[in-house]
Amino acid sequence: MRKGKTFILSGPSGVGKGTVLKMLLETQKNVYISVSATTRAARSGEVDGIHYHFLDTATFEEWIAQDAFLEHAEYVGNFYGTPKKFVDSAMDEGKDVILEIEVQGALQIAKKRPEAVLIFVVPPSWEELERRLTLRGTDSPEKIRQRLQRAKEEFRIAYAYPYHYFVYNGIVEEAAKELDAIMTAEHCRSMERLEILCD
Amino acid sequence: MRKGKTFILSGPSGVGKGTVLKMLLETQKNVYISVSATTRAARSGEVDGIHYHFLDTATFEEWIAQDAFLEHAEYVGNFYGTPKKFVDSAMDEGKDVILEIEVQGALQIAKKRPEAVLIFVVPPSWEELERRLTLRGTDSPEKIRQRLQRAKEEFRIAYAYPYHYFVYNGIVEEAAKELDAIMTAEHCRSMERLEILCD
Repeated sequence: MRKGKTFILSGPSGVGKGTVLKMLLETQKNVYISVSATTRAARSGEVDGIHYHFLDTATFEEWIAQDAFLEHAEYVGNFYGTPKKFVDSAMDEGKDVILEIEVQGALQIAKKRPEAVLIFVVPPSWEELERRLTLRGTDSPEKIRQRLQRAKEEFRIAYAYPYHYFVYNGIVEEAAKELDAIMTAEHCRSMERLEILCD
Repeated sequence: MRKGKTFILSGPSGVGKGTVLKMLLETQKNVYISVSATTRAARSGEVDGIHYHFLDTATFEEWIAQDAFLEHAEYVGNFYGTPKKFVDSAMDEGKDVILEIEVQGALQIAKKRPEAVLIFVVPPSWEELERRLTLRGTDSPEKIRQRLQRAKEEFRIAYAYPYHYFVYNGIVEEAAKELDAIMTAEHCRSMERLEILCD
């Protein structure tokens, strides 16, 4: 059985990562989308284990102490993290794992898992990203300005070194096809699949 | 316009590289399959510029002196080589170039063009390769034994270092899909496509 691989998906707010992932799951069936753990309270409609793994602060800190996270961070008084165990058990089952995660968390994971494949989803232009954020209608002009600023900073970090692939989300079908191609191609780099041919 | 990339396709005699390429051309339209130059005489039905670029020995040697080949070799008294100019002009037109070439020639090209992507087509097993060579019915058992020996040697070289990807040709549709994915994914690694996003 082929072993699963870890793919980290980053990219600015509003670029459409969720839509691309949804479309990807129509072609790549053997995929586990990682669910984060958090100490923040569940909102109405959020289901434990689906939207987040909801943990109390004591448990979260115990998991940190046990090195049970691939990455974790504090944000507005709550902890967020990626639990190792769900990722590892999915990979052991032969599933590819996709982690949707921002650049700082991705770099934490890249240190622990140098074999992880880092993918950054980019808009066709910054103007187009601004247009999408504006159309979404959830943010003030000031908030949109901040998001664009942050998007450019994250892109500069991703571009400067660690990211392996950049997927354009101009047309969502094209972006999903590129992501699908990256996952397929990365399995062709695997040495383990060739062991049967080695004397 | 995106710039073309160079993909080198190697793999043992009988593994089905030609069939995979034929199927690939149904999905990847913007591709130039490199045509070799040779000093051997054209056989009945062979067309200059389609099957080979047929050159006389003086011209071939002149091209060698001008460094006009990406790789060249002598085989049974004739010269064979990959002319640079057709590859380069196709890439300038935005086409991806595929060179079907054996391992030694591929290594020559990899030195001159470190950005070339090296792909090795492997059979699902050596027994299956032997079966395919036998079914083809063109070789004696002794010749098949030699081809298998050579296939294993080439695979060991490809595996030991320079090849980036290994495509299984178990089912030809799957192999063509993998090759297609590799070409798409490699374009997502390109930095030039991101220049518009850089300040």
